[in-house]
Amino acid sequence: MDITARIERSLHTALAPGATPPLLNLAMQHAVFPGGARVRPRLCLAAAEACGGDDPALAEAAAAAIELMHCASLVHDDMPCFDDAATRRGRLSVHRAFGEPLALLAGDALIVLAFQTVLRAPIRHPERLAEIMRIVADSVGTPTGIVAGQAWECETHVDVSAYHRAKTAALFAGASMAGAAAAGGPIEEWRAVGERLGEAYQVADDIGDAISAAEEMGKPVGQDAALGRPSAVRELGLRGAVARLEALADAAAAAVPPCRGRAGLGALIREGARRLLPKTLPAGAM
Amino acid sequence: MDITARIERSLHTALAPGATPPLLNLAMQHAVFPGGARVRPRLCLAAAEACGGDDPALAEAAAAAIELMHCASLVHDDMPCFDDAATRRGRLSVHRAFGEPLALLAGDALIVLAFQTVLRAPIRHPERLAEIMRIVADSVGTPTGIVAGQAWECETHVDVSAYHRAKTAALFAGASMAGAAAAGGPIEEWRAVGERLGEAYQVADDIGDAISAAEEMGKPVGQDAALGRPSAVRELGLRGAVARLEALADAAAAAVPPCRGRAGLGALIREGARRLLPKTLPAGAM
Repeated sequence: MDITARIERSLHTALAPGATPPLLNLAMQHAVFPGGARVRPRLCLAAAEACGGDDPALAEAAAAAIELMHCASLVHDDMPCFDDAATRRGRLSVHRAFGEPLALLAGDALIVLAFQTVLRAPIRHPERLAEIMRIVADSVGTPTGIVAGQAWECETHVDVSAYHRAKTAALFAGASMAGAAAAGGPIEEWRAVGERLGEAYQVADDIGDAISAAEEMGKPVGQDAALGRPSAVRELGLRGAVARLEALADAAAAAVPPCRGRAGLGALIREGARRLLPKTLPAGAM
Repeated sequence: MDITARIERSLHTALAPGATPPLLNLAMQHAVFPGGARVRPRLCLAAAEACGGDDPALAEAAAAAIELMHCASLVHDDMPCFDDAATRRGRLSVHRAFGEPLALLAGDALIVLAFQTVLRAPIRHPERLAEIMRIVADSVGTPTGIVAGQAWECETHVDVSAYHRAKTAALFAGASMAGAAAAGGPIEEWRAVGERLGEAYQVADDIGDAISAAEEMGKPVGQDAALGRPSAVRELGLRGAVARLEALADAAAAAVPPCRGRAGLGALIREGARRLLPKTLPAGAM
């Protein structure tokens, strides 16, 4: 089974309706399906495979947990008190489709479901559970996870480097480390792979925000400028930002620790980062 | 160290500022301190003690996790899209004191912190971790935790018994089961203790909502009638509701499984339930 099918299957298993209040389940499904590029769970599974992949069910649960956390953050970030986004991935955002109460609850339930997904997995190596849960939790919560990253936007004195690391890179770092942990690999050694890739992704997002048409992104664009957020394009110009993205992808590939799948993974990372660039990039920007 | 001091100490440890964005940390602290009656963590520690209490640090972490989940739910429930409550425990609610974005993030961060608290505990019995995490997660998330309970309020066809069980009783059940699990005791056998106590607490809340002055509750009252929610007082009358509360406390005490501290815990439960009644209960209601 290919990597995309494995990710979608574990997400569908996690979101099976069961006894969940029906509208809550639909709101959660709306937040998760259809997905975006699933970059984080792909990275998680790729890291697990590169480390030997001896417990696929655990790696899939970890990958699903990371993606559920990502989807939860999108639901809450889209709400009126943050971005007030009407659309996401080309459809209504969760709060526009289901109302604010269910959007708030769907985000909460997805955060908890991420942990439940790891805890419910039919796994061979239960002794790896706690480490995976710790990685997932720390990449989302305080002091340095994506929730903390979002909270830096509410401070008057912002630690810009902490902001960037937490807002996006933390969950990418969590993805690579959780994948390694799921396969019994080294953990800290995988942090830089995810962090560099997360930084690359943030730069790609800044580029997309600056130049894409709303139709292509499927969400409102030009938000960074409108909200006065830091942006790689404003700092480096468009050509500089594209060069920065490629340098970060190279750094991510170079950071892959010695393992069976090192060469293949490096190529995958460089290729994946390039695909993050908007299709409408003006000639001469690369 | 007495039970109150142990609970407050573990909550303070969990909420140490560290590198967390300062306003986010303050918003989280505001949600947790000063506390209410800490009924759930008290139940958790009491269950652990009754089961032999051989891992106090793990029991304290479990108790703190349960209370952090409770506080997170209060923060999100108070937000404008739900109760729009201006006050809580006699002070401004979190969103009134810190704004909606930080209230939303503080709730999210508290949910994650609950798991982190269990994962960070300096414990003697790591093999009990997964079970505790599972209990905590299931009492909060889908399909039958407090988030699902809240979500039943958004459905047109409500399963009233599932609603009641999830909305309040689930986290009480989680408290008693997590306490037992922390001490290596039987787990399912403790569910009914928490469930009956949770139902008693819900009845006490209905009584308080129906008759208390806003000053005593420290939060807006009469919400059940205003929002058309089910209420034991509307179903049974005031006298009937008080009798129901006492019957539930008796049932909770009777449900305590055979263990060292069974008699003392039963008395504690009955006494605790009686203290849930508003001080201004009209003469003749008991």
